[in-house]
Amino acid sequence: MSLSPEILHKLTAIVGETHIFTDEATRRHYGHDETEDYVFPPQVVVKPANTQEVADILKVANDYKVPTTPIGARTGLSGGALSIYEGIGLSMERFNKIIEIDELNLQVTVEPAVITQILREAVAEKGLFYPVDPSSMGSCWIGGNIAENAGGARALKYGVTKDYVLNLEVVLPNGDIIWTGANTLKNSTGYNLTQLMVGSEGTLGVITKAVLKLLPQNSHNVLLLVPFYKAHEACEAVSAIFRAGIVPSALEFMERDAIDWTLRLVEGISVPVKPEHQAHLLIEVDGNYPEVLMQEAEKIVGVVEQFEIDEVLFADSDEQKNALWKMRRSVAEAVKSNSVYKEEDTVVPRYMLPELLSGIKRIGAQYGFQSVCYGHAGDGNLHVNIIKGDMSDDYWKTQVPLGIREIFELTVSLKGTLSGEHGIGYVQKNFMDIAFTRTHLELMESIKRVFDPNNVLNPGKIFPDEL
Amino acid sequence: MSLSPEILHKLTAIVGETHIFTDEATRRHYGHDETEDYVFPPQVVVKPANTQEVADILKVANDYKVPTTPIGARTGLSGGALSIYEGIGLSMERFNKIIEIDELNLQVTVEPAVITQILREAVAEKGLFYPVDPSSMGSCWIGGNIAENAGGARALKYGVTKDYVLNLEVVLPNGDIIWTGANTLKNSTGYNLTQLMVGSEGTLGVITKAVLKLLPQNSHNVLLLVPFYKAHEACEAVSAIFRAGIVPSALEFMERDAIDWTLRLVEGISVPVKPEHQAHLLIEVDGNYPEVLMQEAEKIVGVVEQFEIDEVLFADSDEQKNALWKMRRSVAEAVKSNSVYKEEDTVVPRYMLPELLSGIKRIGAQYGFQSVCYGHAGDGNLHVNIIKGDMSDDYWKTQVPLGIREIFELTVSLKGTLSGEHGIGYVQKNFMDIAFTRTHLELMESIKRVFDPNNVLNPGKIFPDEL
Repeated sequence: MSLSPEILHKLTAIVGETHIFTDEATRRHYGHDETEDYVFPPQVVVKPANTQEVADILKVANDYKVPTTPIGARTGLSGGALSIYEGIGLSMERFNKIIEIDELNLQVTVEPAVITQILREAVAEKGLFYPVDPSSMGSCWIGGNIAENAGGARALKYGVTKDYVLNLEVVLPNGDIIWTGANTLKNSTGYNLTQLMVGSEGTLGVITKAVLKLLPQNSHNVLLLVPFYKAHEACEAVSAIFRAGIVPSALEFMERDAIDWTLRLVEGISVPVKPEHQAHLLIEVDGNYPEVLMQEAEKIVGVVEQFEIDEVLFADSDEQKNALWKMRRSVAEAVKSNSVYKEEDTVVPRYMLPELLSGIKRIGAQYGFQSVCYGHAGDGNLHVNIIKGDMSDDYWKTQVPLGIREIFELTVSLKGTLSGEHGIGYVQKNFMDIAFTRTHLELMESIKRVFDPNNVLNPGKIFPDEL
Repeated sequence: MSLSPEILHKLTAIVGETHIFTDEATRRHYGHDETEDYVFPPQVVVKPANTQEVADILKVANDYKVPTTPIGARTGLSGGALSIYEGIGLSMERFNKIIEIDELNLQVTVEPAVITQILREAVAEKGLFYPVDPSSMGSCWIGGNIAENAGGARALKYGVTKDYVLNLEVVLPNGDIIWTGANTLKNSTGYNLTQLMVGSEGTLGVITKAVLKLLPQNSHNVLLLVPFYKAHEACEAVSAIFRAGIVPSALEFMERDAIDWTLRLVEGISVPVKPEHQAHLLIEVDGNYPEVLMQEAEKIVGVVEQFEIDEVLFADSDEQKNALWKMRRSVAEAVKSNSVYKEEDTVVPRYMLPELLSGIKRIGAQYGFQSVCYGHAGDGNLHVNIIKGDMSDDYWKTQVPLGIREIFELTVSLKGTLSGEHGIGYVQKNFMDIAFTRTHLELMESIKRVFDPNNVLNPGKIFPDEL
């Protein structure tokens, strides 16, 4: 079914002829993100220039009940930006300005299509720090980070996106425009619609501006790579480090396969990896006082030495640090270049990590799938990449999801949940019954209806197909 | 109007005869909090023992459409716990257990009637840190802290209550029971009902358990008291400290009157205050490395010396530190012992503080009221105590609110908002139109209706009388 000429005419009148596209190549381009191999092209792609144009588009969408999917950098891993019911693909790419870096108040006002790394670099030039650093920060956008409540490697010390969002300009599905809060560090004034919007995956409104909190920039850090002979001991070491009174700025876990595949893909990284290492922890501490950081690093070494480890690598140059981080950030890409895979974004209280990891391997063995596990162990967030390899399409589609269901059941039984930072989107929605009661899901659906009674904004996401 | 014998009978059947009260003394006792001199007794006070009893009470309340007000420690400053439509006063006092301090995951599970300071001390014994410290922490409860999104002196470095709430057990107005999230540090799984509940002032559900995040305890701190000859320069120094790259663990502002009144009320505090000091900043840095803290303290002195200050006091014993903190925490009590007052909880981006302060004084002069200002300047949160003194009741009730309206209009024009940490409750609700558009308020009201279609839970709070 194609959109009526009347609708297309109205959309053209809003964005102008040069910012509306119905050709197949463009629709297809905007029809995929980084989620497996899914492609769901919208019927039309529009690229509004400003908040009012977004409002006008949503009014048309509401009048004609056209499904409308906000589209960001398309780096998402849960399919939140896929136009699964076709309709309008609302690309936010023209919202790409850093509006103001407020050095006096340590805040930045930014449009949603600013690349996270560009924002980080722009504020760093002023001596300020935006800590949230998803692995995709070189290409993902702030708007998508807010929509999915993105995390990253520094979340264990600095928190996730939600901890930096002070205020949002949002276009509601009916075209009304609000600011959700105030530009203040604390706020007890009415319901927290700012935090309701963060992580709502573009289903409650379209973010058109964001005011984010900044910190003073730290000047120093120390980075360690610790090879473990036993993967579960690497997991155990994670909570032991915190219990020793240390809050690292990063604490990343990588299974052996994750490193091997990455080193094959990414050139020029030299890491002393031996066949007998089962897993590595990449550990960073940061601050302004190098002698303190060395003390903390030594305390960390004292903790990890209680486990069976090989020699600890102290990265002592920026070059070496960058290489280690490049390795860590390239894992997803490396896995993807190897095989189609499903990525689960499990998260548990951090002491439960060893139990989660061994359970995942047990379930994988039972269902006959290989998984590559890595992630932000410091906050209990383990990415589980399930490899398709030469598995039949039928088994992949019918049997593997049963194994994933078991993984999520285990996760929830450990007081964890389905997604730590990727969101539910399209691919995890039919697992939501594991984490939430029917009452709870109905409550969320009722909130969705308050914002979007006609269900035009990003329909088919978050909520299970059958409630 | 009294409650029918049928309703009282059903409530008695739920909580038992020893936990239901209709005598005037008890009703009056539960009819006030710390908000001005308001008293709104409920018709009946019930004291449930557990979550199921709360659920059963709310079912009765819904069946009979009886207004029901959750009552905590009654230390609130916005009247959130006042039974303004009488009905059932739901005292949560029997929910007073720390259920589990989870040292492995740095979390605590707690019931809502645990006193904040008792929680802080209990976790400190295990080397852990719950940073949120409202001035009333010796008597307020965690449940109320969550309901109002309480802050305190350490919020500028450590955040407010919302930043520590991982998961909540909540009884919904219809008696359904949910856990809002998971016990994880990050979560991108559905709408963030945890954060919607925090700060909702008991209007969306009754909190019966909370899982809170903890940090490792810091071992050291340094405390400075800086006397300023000009109050607005004290305000200016606040953002200058952050811009110098320092994040203090506390940065409190006290006007001269606040200190004078407190020193008259609280005995045994020796502070070198001179008549020519207009304001003081109380500044703390904390951490594990004393030599680093001394360096930070010296940097701070370097910043404040750019202003006209008198000699800086370094508190060098625990006794002296405790005395300074006691002084700061006693300001509200001191003002109260002097006169009835209205407390406004203004909050702005911190660089706007000098403009806020001078505006408040200008408006006060215009309306003929005295104000005593103090608060958490590090996060831009200024408490404005407007003194009744010998003002006529009529002027107090009709003219002073017009001045308060001007103060809030100024606050919002500076990108701030009505309440930083006290909530809106009963006393600020008719100022909500200053901070929010009609669209926005209607959206919040619609969310309220999703949770509480019969408007039985804490009615008459947050929303203006006329929308």
